[in-house]
Amino acid sequence: MAISKDRLKKIEEFEEKIGYSFNDKELIDVAFTHSSYTNEVKGKKKSNERLEFLGDSILDMIVSEILFKNYSQKPEGWLTKTRSRLVCTSSFAKACEKFQMSSYLNFGNGEKQGGGELKKHVKADTFEAVCAAIYLDSSYENLFNFLVTNYKAEALHVINDDSIFNDYKTKLQEYHNAKDKKILKYELTKEEGPEHSKTFTMAVKLGNKILAYGVGKNKKQAEQMAAKAAFEKINKKNG
Amino acid sequence: MAISKDRLKKIEEFEEKIGYSFNDKELIDVAFTHSSYTNEVKGKKKSNERLEFLGDSILDMIVSEILFKNYSQKPEGWLTKTRSRLVCTSSFAKACEKFQMSSYLNFGNGEKQGGGELKKHVKADTFEAVCAAIYLDSSYENLFNFLVTNYKAEALHVINDDSIFNDYKTKLQEYHNAKDKKILKYELTKEEGPEHSKTFTMAVKLGNKILAYGVGKNKKQAEQMAAKAAFEKINKKNG
Repeated sequence: MAISKDRLKKIEEFEEKIGYSFNDKELIDVAFTHSSYTNEVKGKKKSNERLEFLGDSILDMIVSEILFKNYSQKPEGWLTKTRSRLVCTSSFAKACEKFQMSSYLNFGNGEKQGGGELKKHVKADTFEAVCAAIYLDSSYENLFNFLVTNYKAEALHVINDDSIFNDYKTKLQEYHNAKDKKILKYELTKEEGPEHSKTFTMAVKLGNKILAYGVGKNKKQAEQMAAKAAFEKINKKNG
Repeated sequence: MAISKDRLKKIEEFEEKIGYSFNDKELIDVAFTHSSYTNEVKGKKKSNERLEFLGDSILDMIVSEILFKNYSQKPEGWLTKTRSRLVCTSSFAKACEKFQMSSYLNFGNGEKQGGGELKKHVKADTFEAVCAAIYLDSSYENLFNFLVTNYKAEALHVINDDSIFNDYKTKLQEYHNAKDKKILKYELTKEEGPEHSKTFTMAVKLGNKILAYGVGKNKKQAEQMAAKAAFEKINKKNG
């Protein structure tokens, strides 16, 4: 089915945003077609579901290859855990937001009224479909470079945020379980900075006694940092 | 660590078998090194676990790409189900058997005595690691061609055996549950042809009454065909 003039204009706007122009405009048109649209509109049969299927596996491979080659000393367990933090709905949804990809989606009326473009899984699916479209329209290398250029910083942030592997809160509670069986509490003591780059300070408490403070970009991270600081004090005392 | 003369001879034997010669012999040596070996032998630190990690994702992508491009009319649900039947432990273990890949593995003594090379997951892991080694040593295209050349027939067999989507046995039993609550039985009535291409005939019975016969390449398939034939008779009678 031919692409309308208005639609083509939107596609060109998107191409400019991402710095890539599609040879086959139908590919990116399909990537931006939600299944709810094809269910309602006759004559236009293709939705982005098949592209999602392909995109998911390409992204998995690219992330695997990057981790494998750049972290040659890390064991398989680390690679698998880190991949699963990068190849997931929430990470792909964020990647979609960078270029407001889901705002280009054609939706059926029901889905549109239901706020389809704001749904996390719709965003993630759109990102997968767009990546598959770039791959099919050009090459693996091209998609690889597109991802590295646009998402390297975000990916490094996820990779280096190893709080998931160093769960200080659990360790600290285990230490106190063995010692005095008291439950630790965390309290927000400060919240500062502008809306888009706030920092949070949390205190970890044993009863009324503050053991340590931690600072982070969100409350969870600040709690981990507080537990870590408390741990370091214990180690200093004991060692 | 240098590769011993004996080891190199074995590697060359394998290369001849698969019709591919590695530029980097260490890659295939690592692919054939089980973690139980590295745990026991000092100085040799790399096992095939990281290669497995990479191989798994490459295989997933190659299978996805083949399905996507060759079955352009199939919906996403079919693609996902079919991929999961191709990209799985039992399918990779079979692929490993074709070239007896696991017989080239270096094992630790405990694992060797425990029959490591015969374990299904060890076979599957070895296949993944070998595929990753071919990819790293040459290219995606090369691995793609290696897989198509050697495994196309087996893959087509899995793809076309859609009995998993048309479970006639379950449907037929459900029909009789609603009707007379009698349990259906299946009986082998014929087995013919040479060892490598046998056909089996199964009868589906309700009490002593034979409802229909089915023929297949294995008993499971023949049972499904018998149930399918019984169903068609019912439909004819009722329609």
